[in-house]
Amino acid sequence: MDVICAIGDVRDRVRAARDEGRRVGFVPTMGALHEGHLSLVRRAAGDGCFVAASIYVNPSQFAAGEDLARYPRTLESDLARCRAEGVGLVFVPSDETMYGAAHATWVEVGEVTAGLCGAWRPGHFRGVATIVAKLFNVVQPDVAYFGRKDFQQLVTIRRMAADLDMPVEVVGCPTVRDADGLALSSRNAYLSPAERARALAIPAVLREADGRWRGGERRPGGLVAGLRERLASAVDSIDYFGVYHPETLAPADEAAPPGGNPVVALAARVGRTRLIDNVQLGIDPPPSSAT
Amino acid sequence: MDVICAIGDVRDRVRAARDEGRRVGFVPTMGALHEGHLSLVRRAAGDGCFVAASIYVNPSQFAAGEDLARYPRTLESDLARCRAEGVGLVFVPSDETMYGAAHATWVEVGEVTAGLCGAWRPGHFRGVATIVAKLFNVVQPDVAYFGRKDFQQLVTIRRMAADLDMPVEVVGCPTVRDADGLALSSRNAYLSPAERARALAIPAVLREADGRWRGGERRPGGLVAGLRERLASAVDSIDYFGVYHPETLAPADEAAPPGGNPVVALAARVGRTRLIDNVQLGIDPPPSSAT
Repeated sequence: MDVICAIGDVRDRVRAARDEGRRVGFVPTMGALHEGHLSLVRRAAGDGCFVAASIYVNPSQFAAGEDLARYPRTLESDLARCRAEGVGLVFVPSDETMYGAAHATWVEVGEVTAGLCGAWRPGHFRGVATIVAKLFNVVQPDVAYFGRKDFQQLVTIRRMAADLDMPVEVVGCPTVRDADGLALSSRNAYLSPAERARALAIPAVLREADGRWRGGERRPGGLVAGLRERLASAVDSIDYFGVYHPETLAPADEAAPPGGNPVVALAARVGRTRLIDNVQLGIDPPPSSAT
Repeated sequence: MDVICAIGDVRDRVRAARDEGRRVGFVPTMGALHEGHLSLVRRAAGDGCFVAASIYVNPSQFAAGEDLARYPRTLESDLARCRAEGVGLVFVPSDETMYGAAHATWVEVGEVTAGLCGAWRPGHFRGVATIVAKLFNVVQPDVAYFGRKDFQQLVTIRRMAADLDMPVEVVGCPTVRDADGLALSSRNAYLSPAERARALAIPAVLREADGRWRGGERRPGGLVAGLRERLASAVDSIDYFGVYHPETLAPADEAAPPGGNPVVALAARVGRTRLIDNVQLGIDPPPSSAT
């Protein structure tokens, strides 16, 4: 496995893999790797790809006052996990490599970034779209893998790739959960045991909404009736909780039901930690839950 | 020469050229081709490239009230000229191909787009950057050629390509002028003979500024002293006229002289026609002039 800091060296390695007839699969990460990330790597490898990963905590997707400084950084164990999974190269750029002093270009993805997390994290999706555009241009993968846990991010990147005619296939992969139902996230490391116990209300309300859908409920109001209150009684605050169109992320209501299978998505704060989760009703496996 | 409307077909043709060991050179245009465009094609061919051109009047770079509807469209003669120059493929997409109904992604290049034409054409460079990003992703060229006549456009695209790590070399090519000194532009077709005669004040003032530079003048104020008035007496209005840093496009003044060779750039209106021109002092050949 090659650990590479320079853009030109990434391109050389990818070109060599392609010259050997390999498709190139890309897994961009911010490190602090967990089974969710590794599931993306395994999917890429299972698809027969030469797997390129990146580890870069992208400052432009953190707003002022967010957790950029304390975001977990576990490079050595991350690299060991990548090596164990057969990753071919890991791109580990510096801030200087990714953002020169004159950097002034931003990719803005428009309405799918306006609501949900976009309403609470100013500039977040601009930073995400820009760094992913850059990483796509560095790695030039055939296919890139993203977790469905960050559903709005996945929708944003799909929209960007389609709108800018990027020559890459974007694949969304299932959320990986711990046995108690909590979606894996690098930020779970921030939770105290008591906070973690309270956070289990998140998969619990998603499981309940999914169960109602599978039981035949189709009215957006009916899918989530009472659940915001149930969630609010466990967590410290709720940024958003609702039923959304799976491609536009428009809020679904009785007047505007989503076509197809809606997403129930939420962001909630437990202690100092902000957690997000979602389930696409009738499509994702129902979150298990200890509650 | 292949005339292609579909993105997938462009990629197939480019891949075939690359498989034959050719570098791919790209010349994006809005059609109404003149010797300026053809000089880009010849440069690409002279560099040994398989030459891909595009002809697309990009609506998103025209502000409301600009000349989108009357912009000259001369597809048949454009294609004949491309064929005569040995172009390998011409991409001629429809609006539907380039902008789906859900299109929501825009590339914003920041400060180099704020002044000069950017101050007079709201959204123009956003539209330019976005369509060029899209076309780069469609064609995936090794090198792309742009005229220096659209100097701010060239600076914007260089900035975008660097900031987003686009795997393409951006080459700026000299402005091509008619014998009377007027820079070639598709919009020159709008000029009446009397307007065209008045427009010759544009290359005249640029030639004067360049002559002062070559004569040793280095003070920004001294380079253009009296020239705005001379220009104003010939044209109907001046959007901007000044001395600018060649990479940042910051206005140069005595307190902030540009490093290296500054650009004298202007936009002026003659009748209903808006014309732009520029000269990088001491680098570009001096505009010839009949006045």
